[in-house]
Amino acid sequence: MNTARAQLLDWLRNAHAMEVQSEEMLKTHIRRLHHYPQLRDRIVSHLAETCEQQAKLEHCLREMGGEPSGLREFSARFLALGHGLLQVASTDEVVKSLVLTYSFESMEAVVYRTLMTSAEVAAQPEIAGVCEDILRQEEAMAEWLREHLPDIVRQYLVRLELPGIQAKR
Amino acid sequence: MNTARAQLLDWLRNAHAMEVQSEEMLKTHIRRLHHYPQLRDRIVSHLAETCEQQAKLEHCLREMGGEPSGLREFSARFLALGHGLLQVASTDEVVKSLVLTYSFESMEAVVYRTLMTSAEVAAQPEIAGVCEDILRQEEAMAEWLREHLPDIVRQYLVRLELPGIQAKR
Repeated sequence: MNTARAQLLDWLRNAHAMEVQSEEMLKTHIRRLHHYPQLRDRIVSHLAETCEQQAKLEHCLREMGGEPSGLREFSARFLALGHGLLQVASTDEVVKSLVLTYSFESMEAVVYRTLMTSAEVAAQPEIAGVCEDILRQEEAMAEWLREHLPDIVRQYLVRLELPGIQAKR
Repeated sequence: MNTARAQLLDWLRNAHAMEVQSEEMLKTHIRRLHHYPQLRDRIVSHLAETCEQQAKLEHCLREMGGEPSGLREFSARFLALGHGLLQVASTDEVVKSLVLTYSFESMEAVVYRTLMTSAEVAAQPEIAGVCEDILRQEEAMAEWLREHLPDIVRQYLVRLELPGIQAKR
């Protein structure tokens, strides 16, 4: 197996582990969010995409004669960041979750850009195509979050000033 | 002090702590990168911007009667992620650094979007303007990384296959 192919296989395994962790993060947000239904709905639909992405990556891994591996360093640490954050009893939880999810989606997008290039170098056009499709979904999720952020922040700040109303999630 | 104003002050303190940590992260990359001069140069120029951003945020904090605080939960964890990553003896260090820096810049961008909205709600147009200026710099850095990623990944993969050549940083 040449080096470019071996590197592609390693990065595909990383990406699969990242999506498993993304699933956990999104489920945590869905479970905790109560007062921001539009955000919650978008996360629910991205959770479905995330599960499909895992299946697509498993297919790519099998095509290359590999298989998914367990938790990997990079995104495991990112997930630890997320869990740590959500355990902090912060009044601005919804905003912190938004920042975390956006950062995670951005990381995912740049990982799929890396994979696309790597698959091209390793002469694996089918895998490059799969990674491009997933990249578009990650970018669409990040774009949605960026566009809706001002509204969500305003909703949070309004709720914060209303007595007896919960703002944080 | 009303709630929107108190929240703005808290988020400005977070942003300042985030930039202090960004400075550390960028310095670590500069110290370690050897074989990717174009990437290193762009990081050097963003380090200068990062130091200016700290000064701008300190000005905003003083205008609001606050002052910078120490390490904060959110970006402290992000920094821990970065340090952990760079301590991993990975052969693909330059690519992992790129993914980390891009994710951090994306986090910074979304934090400044949050601050802009928060400053508008708190009737602080000058601070909203400062945050918009910083946002443009963070977006420009993220855009540069996104654009140059395929080239850097290709360079890394080429070096990886050359005997006796170091690829990782």
